[in-house]
Amino acid sequence: MIILVLNCGSSSLKYQVLDMKSENDYSLLAKGLVERIGGTMGILNHQVPDREKYSVEKPVPDHTAGISYVLEMLTDKKLGVLSSLKDIDAVGHRVAHGGEYFFRSTAIDDKAIANIEKCCELAPLHNPANLLGIRAVQSLMPEIPQVAVFDTSFHQTMPDYAYMYAIPYEYYQKYKIRRYGFHGTSHKFVAQKACDFVGMDINNSKIVTCHLGNGSSITAVKNGRSIDTSMGFTPMEGLVMGTRSGTLDAGVVTFLAEKENLTTSEINALLNKKSGLLGISQISSDMRDIESGAGSGNANAALAQEMLFYGIRKYIGSYAAAMGGLDMFVFTGGIGENSSVTREQACEGLEFLGVHFDKDINRATRGKDVLLSTSSSKVKVVAVTTNEELVIARDTMNIVKNK
Amino acid sequence: MIILVLNCGSSSLKYQVLDMKSENDYSLLAKGLVERIGGTMGILNHQVPDREKYSVEKPVPDHTAGISYVLEMLTDKKLGVLSSLKDIDAVGHRVAHGGEYFFRSTAIDDKAIANIEKCCELAPLHNPANLLGIRAVQSLMPEIPQVAVFDTSFHQTMPDYAYMYAIPYEYYQKYKIRRYGFHGTSHKFVAQKACDFVGMDINNSKIVTCHLGNGSSITAVKNGRSIDTSMGFTPMEGLVMGTRSGTLDAGVVTFLAEKENLTTSEINALLNKKSGLLGISQISSDMRDIESGAGSGNANAALAQEMLFYGIRKYIGSYAAAMGGLDMFVFTGGIGENSSVTREQACEGLEFLGVHFDKDINRATRGKDVLLSTSSSKVKVVAVTTNEELVIARDTMNIVKNK
Repeated sequence: MIILVLNCGSSSLKYQVLDMKSENDYSLLAKGLVERIGGTMGILNHQVPDREKYSVEKPVPDHTAGISYVLEMLTDKKLGVLSSLKDIDAVGHRVAHGGEYFFRSTAIDDKAIANIEKCCELAPLHNPANLLGIRAVQSLMPEIPQVAVFDTSFHQTMPDYAYMYAIPYEYYQKYKIRRYGFHGTSHKFVAQKACDFVGMDINNSKIVTCHLGNGSSITAVKNGRSIDTSMGFTPMEGLVMGTRSGTLDAGVVTFLAEKENLTTSEINALLNKKSGLLGISQISSDMRDIESGAGSGNANAALAQEMLFYGIRKYIGSYAAAMGGLDMFVFTGGIGENSSVTREQACEGLEFLGVHFDKDINRATRGKDVLLSTSSSKVKVVAVTTNEELVIARDTMNIVKNK
Repeated sequence: MIILVLNCGSSSLKYQVLDMKSENDYSLLAKGLVERIGGTMGILNHQVPDREKYSVEKPVPDHTAGISYVLEMLTDKKLGVLSSLKDIDAVGHRVAHGGEYFFRSTAIDDKAIANIEKCCELAPLHNPANLLGIRAVQSLMPEIPQVAVFDTSFHQTMPDYAYMYAIPYEYYQKYKIRRYGFHGTSHKFVAQKACDFVGMDINNSKIVTCHLGNGSSITAVKNGRSIDTSMGFTPMEGLVMGTRSGTLDAGVVTFLAEKENLTTSEINALLNKKSGLLGISQISSDMRDIESGAGSGNANAALAQEMLFYGIRKYIGSYAAAMGGLDMFVFTGGIGENSSVTREQACEGLEFLGVHFDKDINRATRGKDVLLSTSSSKVKVVAVTTNEELVIARDTMNIVKNK
């Protein structure tokens, strides 16, 4: 089954074409990125394994045009990988926010679209773009089945005492203000993958998954279900991230707003785009720059990375307490897969939980699935690579097959 | 040494008179409360152990008048406990905020007053009132030595990666926005008291102190020093409290401000006075009402108490990870000393840390110093009563003696 996976942003769209023979037997046919949609000149990058990358500039007035160019590219005689559009069996969309409507991935129909629309208020930058992508496919390939895979749905199993904020209850009723969590596809995927990798039964396991990238979140996965996660109502809460602040005292928000005379949208921009590792280090939002800055004696870079390491340690301890124990924790995402310093420091001092970490193996690990704990370690520590597009393709395949 | 302890609020003042023979040999001579200072009619409540309580209404135009009435009462032939004001050797003040100026309690002189003034911006409701009390004593008893004991100073040992927020570094430099923590006198006192009680060396210990009352905070005390605490820049952060929200996603703050069209001071009022247990339960901010509500089937009351229990468990796990282990945790404050349900539920699922909790002993414990863990428990659990006034009197005595 050939699946086109789409991840539409407000002015960009990412795609992958996967040939899914089964959940675990698949191949990537092509992938790419369209940027600057709606600008005067767009850029298309298209990549087929074992071929040269292809890049072209042309105006891309809207998402329909963007997807139309992608489809042309995929069926192009020279650049393409499909003989015709009819080869595509289904389209899977990454959708940012499913609110309390979606506990799992879903076939897209009018009701699903209406509910995704209702969640636009909760993800005003992302859900409208996701809907543009869905509608563009409807107009270009009206017969093709589409599936929505949500960033939030894995976390819908959290108990109320984990997802509620202690503000007046009416705001939950009126606006659905609560913890939703994000990166759900990744947390779900790496929890299962890590269990398979070490031979653990996910239905009888207490796992903390650390998705550490430009955005970072940590999830407590008990018996395969998310019971708590560090991102909240928005992707701003939790760990310090590239440019996002992570958790703050609400008093900081109001104090800053008053002192600097900032509007709510200025505050949001400040906390989303100028904070985090960038805000503290004053040099970069990229962990590689932070590490090299800290290595060459930049005190602010050293502070920024310590804040991240310390935050991860505290979440691991906190979620172990939430689950009543810990069998494994998992590193993934750009930082989790590649930064051996982060993994080592995040494990520092966790011996009391039964963590025995193999520093030598860890130092040699980059972008691979590797067991990082020693054979005597009660708690297993692993690094595994994540693949959100594969989850989307799998869910799409399963939903379309079982229709 | 006779010490007058004063805790001045914006429209109230609490006092105690303690006769300190030594740190541990002392007696309470009198205590009381003046309320509605500045209102048309004030109320004075005065209490001497083993005597009837005395209460009177009279106008109390300002703090100087309030303290003047207290001093009259203390030296009154019938109601008093002192033969003359000269019996008072020193006055100790609770001061809310010491910023980064005060790592410990301090003798009050012009420099100390100037620094307490500089912290008014950080505690705009409390520090100005504390200063009014200090100046009133200066004018009424100009020769008497005064000492300031800060709610924040115990936490000044936190490392930077624990106290910094990941917002642009310039706001720390410009406004001193950082985690300060509060309830420091109580956390310091109960950590030492609990160590003495169980025979643990505080200099070689990893302790979590849970001060649970109308305001609640949890502190990680490693080798006798605070290394992290749940309250932050303001006393709004951390656990769910009586009427305070505890930790929120900053995105909730801006979302609510926008949707409800609230000013920063309206937001602060909402999060400080209408949130927490009250906001969720919709019945009360008092844990006793929440418990009985939950007991009689009120789902919102049950949710409110679960949020508190869960929050405490997560902090214990988080701070164990921060310290690299856990030897003891300590319950104190109105809820911590009296609510056996809270203590039991907060320990639920912590067996993996080596916590073995004696539920029977716990159920029988109210307002006493009691060991709640079994003899086989690796981690000790204790309830101890706190006494912030005693800490203030002790620090005052020691500073005045060593001058």
